[in-house]
Amino acid sequence: MKNIFVTRRERFNAAHQMWNPKWDEETNKEVFGKCANKNWHGHNYQLFVTVKGIVNEETGYCVDLKKVSKIINRYVIDELDHKNINLDVPFMKGKLASTENLTLSIWEQLENKIKDLGVQLHSVRLHETENNYVEYFGEQK
Amino acid sequence: MKNIFVTRRERFNAAHQMWNPKWDEETNKEVFGKCANKNWHGHNYQLFVTVKGIVNEETGYCVDLKKVSKIINRYVIDELDHKNINLDVPFMKGKLASTENLTLSIWEQLENKIKDLGVQLHSVRLHETENNYVEYFGEQK
Amino acid sequence: MKNIFVTRRERFNAAHQMWNPKWDEETNKEVFGKCANKNWHGHNYQLFVTVKGIVNEETGYCVDLKKVSKIINRYVIDELDHKNINLDVPFMKGKLASTENLTLSIWEQLENKIKDLGVQLHSVRLHETENNYVEYFGEQK
Amino acid sequence: MKNIFVTRRERFNAAHQMWNPKWDEETNKEVFGKCANKNWHGHNYQLFVTVKGIVNEETGYCVDLKKVSKIINRYVIDELDHKNINLDVPFMKGKLASTENLTLSIWEQLENKIKDLGVQLHSVRLHETENNYVEYFGEQK
Amino acid sequence: MKNIFVTRRERFNAAHQMWNPKWDEETNKEVFGKCANKNWHGHNYQLFVTVKGIVNEETGYCVDLKKVSKIINRYVIDELDHKNINLDVPFMKGKLASTENLTLSIWEQLENKIKDLGVQLHSVRLHETENNYVEYFGEQK
Amino acid sequence: MKNIFVTRRERFNAAHQMWNPKWDEETNKEVFGKCANKNWHGHNYQLFVTVKGIVNEETGYCVDLKKVSKIINRYVIDELDHKNINLDVPFMKGKLASTENLTLSIWEQLENKIKDLGVQLHSVRLHETENNYVEYFGEQK
Repeated sequence: MKNIFVTRRERFNAAHQMWNPKWDEETNKEVFGKCANKNWHGHNYQLFVTVKGIVNEETGYCVDLKKVSKIINRYVIDELDHKNINLDVPFMKGKLASTENLTLSIWEQLENKIKDLGVQLHSVRLHETENNYVEYFGEQK
Repeated sequence: MKNIFVTRRERFNAAHQMWNPKWDEETNKEVFGKCANKNWHGHNYQLFVTVKGIVNEETGYCVDLKKVSKIINRYVIDELDHKNINLDVPFMKGKLASTENLTLSIWEQLENKIKDLGVQLHSVRLHETENNYVEYFGEQK
Repeated sequence: MKNIFVTRRERFNAAHQMWNPKWDEETNKEVFGKCANKNWHGHNYQLFVTVKGIVNEETGYCVDLKKVSKIINRYVIDELDHKNINLDVPFMKGKLASTENLTLSIWEQLENKIKDLGVQLHSVRLHETENNYVEYFGEQK
Repeated sequence: MKNIFVTRRERFNAAHQMWNPKWDEETNKEVFGKCANKNWHGHNYQLFVTVKGIVNEETGYCVDLKKVSKIINRYVIDELDHKNINLDVPFMKGKLASTENLTLSIWEQLENKIKDLGVQLHSVRLHETENNYVEYFGEQK
Repeated sequence: MKNIFVTRRERFNAAHQMWNPKWDEETNKEVFGKCANKNWHGHNYQLFVTVKGIVNEETGYCVDLKKVSKIINRYVIDELDHKNINLDVPFMKGKLASTENLTLSIWEQLENKIKDLGVQLHSVRLHETENNYVEYFGEQK
Repeated sequence: MKNIFVTRRERFNAAHQMWNPKWDEETNKEVFGKCANKNWHGHNYQLFVTVKGIVNEETGYCVDLKKVSKIINRYVIDELDHKNINLDVPFMKGKLASTENLTLSIWEQLENKIKDLGVQLHSVRLHETENNYVEYFGEQK
């Protein structure tokens, strides 16, 4: 069985803030530093979604990346692009707006939708800056 | 006279919003689209500052880039990084938070400080995304 | 007068071939090397379009980049993307499919349309590979 | 046992077309969209080949990358660069010219030749655009 | 258990030479080619350090990347940046200055320090040029 | 007259040191900081050479970039790649090994050779790191 991995990059620009509402301002500043700025800051996020499957003999494709792109845009990018991650994004409600939580939530948004295309979601990788990124491969890994 | 051009890149992550306070919400949405999101969005900005001068025979440098970097950080990056361009930045007060206005204001912040190093500010180039950037060369060009 | 320069990147993927129909195969191979391959080869082209203007006080923009992008897509990208530059592109008919000629033709496609936006086309830069690119600034430069 | 992974990047520029000869034109257009353009289109492909082995104490190398590069160039790049993947490439004969099939075929081209160097082929990653890439790790994974 | 992977990039510029002191000059030149240049050559190295852990509910972080960065800088970058890998770096003493050995040594420098942060070092990836990189995942993989 | 600008990128990896032999060690350390490390450090330099000319009607080229590349390799890259800029490079003898001086010397190496191809050398741009680069356009600018 020749498993093959196909990756699609999408991008979004969003504002956020690192802030734990259970803590006072001083503690938030101490833990999160300048990421706790009250008036927000923001990033050009880059998202890499990898799916795993076998090659379809009729199409030569593991999966049609146009369909993968459409799903990512509908369930992730449209929710995040030009938004405030702390305030505007239903699937981030009640969660700290870290790249880690964002990555886990994007996985949840995509897992079943990707399965409906006949392939398996393998990983979600999210770059916050050119120096920092987070990756999640699902619970079984 | 061998004029030579030296460029330093610095980066900052900031939130902003495109919004003209003289207009109602509908007009702002019409003109600025999703950039007018009330709860802000943000970017990883990349700033390229180019100075012009001749080579110093003692150092082989046109200018010490460590000093250029220090000036850019003190007068630009420290004011913008992990900030809200509309709310937190004194030198952007009363201006629309476009990349154009930001570029012009960064020029003003830097021009005299760079001159104090014995070289001339040649251009300020500011990248908002991988697809959009703005450049200013001063009024004489 | 504060002239400011704004740049938009767009991309297209196309096939082409370097071939002078006035020459025999041997001469074409000699001059163009492997670029003369009869069955074509191709590239991921990157196009950078720079316009020049002053900042509009109402919008903070030199020009609305969404409009610039729409013009580039309609008059350039839609004509070139997933096409054969030698066979499929009306504005390249009768011209050798070099990056130079492509750059000049893209300038012609865009010059008046950009002027209609109230700004001036300043340069067209076209990257064929990560090692090669061509730039045109109009005839007056 | 300290297994270490070493990766070499090579590049090639090629034309291709997505087309299933068993289908009529309408079906091909429906499934493959603009990738089915009759006159071809093309890409700057980037290929990343990763090998796995232990460090040789005499050389400090896992493998001499100059030798890896020579093999990739002889058995892959020379066959694909400035070529038409559908028409010119013996090891793609009879296969749909997708990035997936190309990745699997490149693995077959390289697997034994890499083994002759005393290391194991670990993965082949092929980037078609800055947004799409495919990866294969062999059948056992 | 949701394991998540977080990566930090750091950079250093260093000189080195490939040279086995047990061999004569001719053999060194034969094996290492121009990398054996007696007067050294150098690189802009890029280092990617990946750690593995679970998300802390209080912070939303797997680990505070500022702390990871501080460790990498203290135990790796400060030892290597603007240094000669063969002559100036205690942890490379007696080892051939290959990217492989450098990667293994960086792992040793970091493994326990990263563990002290409550997460596990997952991989060290070191890029020597845009075409070559080495990766190590520890002995158990 | 349609002047067009064509750019070729080449790369080299070299060691160097910032050191003014007229000064004592203390002054060198004070002025050049860690760049004055006695045992050298190094970089992956990226060189962009831009030529200016008109398009040849027979070839569609401003100039054959294969010939430009050959000249850059023969007169610049072969002299610098895997070398020590202070010790090994005849055209840098007696000059401080700054990016500025290197850029000026590369211009001198190339100017006449490029003219022999029927085009004019327009600029030499040399990147030392991803944050620093130097550009020279000749004396008349």
